[in-house]
Amino acid sequence: MQKSELLAEYRKYKDSGKKLDMSRGKPSSEQLDNMTSLLTEISDIDGCFSENGIDCRNYGCLEGIPEAKRLFAAILGVRESNVIVCGNSSLNIMFDTVSGAYTFGLHGCEPWSRQGKIKFLCPVPGYDRHFAITKLFGIEMINIPVLGDGPDMELVRSYAENDPSVKGIWCVPKYSNPTGVTYSDRVVREFAALRPAAEDFIVMWDDAYAVHDLNDTPDQLLPVLPLAEQNGTADHFYLYTSTSKISWSGAGISCVAMSENSKAEFLEIMKVKTIGFDKLAMLRHARLLCRSLGDVMKMHASVIRPKFELCFKYFERLAADIEGFTYSRPNGGYFINVNVPAGKAKLIVKLANDAGLKLTPAGATYPYGVDPADSNIRIAPTFPTLAELEEALVLFDICVRLACAE
Amino acid sequence: MQKSELLAEYRKYKDSGKKLDMSRGKPSSEQLDNMTSLLTEISDIDGCFSENGIDCRNYGCLEGIPEAKRLFAAILGVRESNVIVCGNSSLNIMFDTVSGAYTFGLHGCEPWSRQGKIKFLCPVPGYDRHFAITKLFGIEMINIPVLGDGPDMELVRSYAENDPSVKGIWCVPKYSNPTGVTYSDRVVREFAALRPAAEDFIVMWDDAYAVHDLNDTPDQLLPVLPLAEQNGTADHFYLYTSTSKISWSGAGISCVAMSENSKAEFLEIMKVKTIGFDKLAMLRHARLLCRSLGDVMKMHASVIRPKFELCFKYFERLAADIEGFTYSRPNGGYFINVNVPAGKAKLIVKLANDAGLKLTPAGATYPYGVDPADSNIRIAPTFPTLAELEEALVLFDICVRLACAE
Repeated sequence: MQKSELLAEYRKYKDSGKKLDMSRGKPSSEQLDNMTSLLTEISDIDGCFSENGIDCRNYGCLEGIPEAKRLFAAILGVRESNVIVCGNSSLNIMFDTVSGAYTFGLHGCEPWSRQGKIKFLCPVPGYDRHFAITKLFGIEMINIPVLGDGPDMELVRSYAENDPSVKGIWCVPKYSNPTGVTYSDRVVREFAALRPAAEDFIVMWDDAYAVHDLNDTPDQLLPVLPLAEQNGTADHFYLYTSTSKISWSGAGISCVAMSENSKAEFLEIMKVKTIGFDKLAMLRHARLLCRSLGDVMKMHASVIRPKFELCFKYFERLAADIEGFTYSRPNGGYFINVNVPAGKAKLIVKLANDAGLKLTPAGATYPYGVDPADSNIRIAPTFPTLAELEEALVLFDICVRLACAE
Repeated sequence: MQKSELLAEYRKYKDSGKKLDMSRGKPSSEQLDNMTSLLTEISDIDGCFSENGIDCRNYGCLEGIPEAKRLFAAILGVRESNVIVCGNSSLNIMFDTVSGAYTFGLHGCEPWSRQGKIKFLCPVPGYDRHFAITKLFGIEMINIPVLGDGPDMELVRSYAENDPSVKGIWCVPKYSNPTGVTYSDRVVREFAALRPAAEDFIVMWDDAYAVHDLNDTPDQLLPVLPLAEQNGTADHFYLYTSTSKISWSGAGISCVAMSENSKAEFLEIMKVKTIGFDKLAMLRHARLLCRSLGDVMKMHASVIRPKFELCFKYFERLAADIEGFTYSRPNGGYFINVNVPAGKAKLIVKLANDAGLKLTPAGATYPYGVDPADSNIRIAPTFPTLAELEEALVLFDICVRLACAE
């Protein structure tokens, strides 16, 4: 197509006034509907008691009920005793972890707030909400490139093992947001073997997509906590996951898992903060998912996979036609990572937004919203229906071609 | 009874090995059972949408759904727009408020963490979990006596209006924990008219028992936020309540209400922390309680009132027999406040504990766990059955008489 034809097509979309959204990793209505039985999983008084007899309607049980701990322990590859079950937002618990370190200190160290300038390692492209937390606390963020099998570990080591002002790293170890990369066994082993200069260094291991496979060749992530225990580094690791993309994003449960030392320290603050999270939500989830997690994830995959494949079809053509256009083909997770020719990402996102297609803001996948090459775009194809997605992709295709023709 | 007879009776109880608990303000099973319809309030997909069409299963809606805001606005006497609906723990939100002020500062002021020594006013006797929060943050706590109709306001003013290092006050304005006192109109008006020396002074208005009346002569609490607005002091007020003692303590919803200024500031942090709290829990509660809150509270009252009356019967006898034994007769809430002769509270609680009756630790109702007179005991009669409660009261009676005979 000539530029003039592209422009005509673009204007047509713009004038149609349609609103499309590929900006956030949200489940679709079809996926949410698949979980309707969760609504009635507990329907009478007898159903309100955990397997060890706790009345889930009343106060108590700070760490969460056993069946929910077991569910998450299996997902994360840790022991039940490592797990604290929390509310509907793992992000909230990540925030609380950073906030606790900042205000009260970790492992007997001074609070971060009293240690002067501190820094955090941020694998890029990465998750904007992680970066928003470290930014809010005024922690300097250092970009670490994500390679084909995880962060550049040589760089991670050089910062973490030499600079005691480097206090942690954000990780999405499986089907990473947005690259789709899963950390290789080598990378996981190197994390477990890391000897940070700072005793209060924390590995924020956000295993959000632990069971979110899309096909029959899923990635395998080595469980990091047992390896870290072998290396004597377990106190540095904070693992998170949730059912936000298993049951319902707005009404799930989450958890954090830690070494016994770190957990004892975490609970000292947590017990002042709350008497415990919603145990009926835990019980509903644990009952349903302990018996059917595999089937549930297959149901989700069957809804999401065609959306990813539709994206691949469009992106394959763009990659063939446009030099510098590349895209990921992940085996799971919620995102496809697109790289466009340098200096074009912002323009493409603006063109799309102006024509009614909301995309994740260009730069959002980098700390401070600054993508140095202005080339990375995160595609979140799960929320629209397949028909809406195709419309969005046609428009996206036009925007990319138009931007790159300029 | 002679001391030797008392001792014999006491030993009999101790040897029986029975375990009784009057230590925490927990609803009884009977109360929890009364709310069983909440389990099935939402049972199909159509039921999952809020009145303005939000899919409560998915992400979004940071402030909470309109019907839940309306429910809490009515309970607190504020506008819907003042309300943020939160998770199952209002305590958690109180913690977050203090933590936010400590780390990020309020109303453009320096963070509390950078202001040197700061102080908080603590009406006493008061709620141990409030004091635990301020203690954790290293905030010095100053005792303020609770008089018949609220805190000693002259003392509150003298601290708050003259010392800029005094940063706030804990309040339970209705059926206060543990005194049962409800703040009079005068006290509420004086709070609203307070001109704190510190711009970042916060009134932590924990209206936990807002609708928790026990009889036909309930106390009336003047809504403080509209009065504060008239006085131009609204930014100082943070109001909290929850359904922990309306629906289920372990699986309810909570809220915080603030001025528009304070809310905007609060949301700046909250939006980094979470994408929003459990909206299905909000929807279940709002649907059931918007149509039946009054009936629900009458049901609870009919279960709790006989327990309070049983306590009154025993305490009346103790008050007649023992000089210095006094007790409250609140019209609502969860506690009866007992004062025993000076120096005897710890001994009575120890005697009770040793014989299998768990009481709130003596001193817990004071900052740092120090009751200067060692005379205050908080009685929480709601959790045991009526039969268990009577056993507990018989034993308590023996312990009081035994301690006072020594």
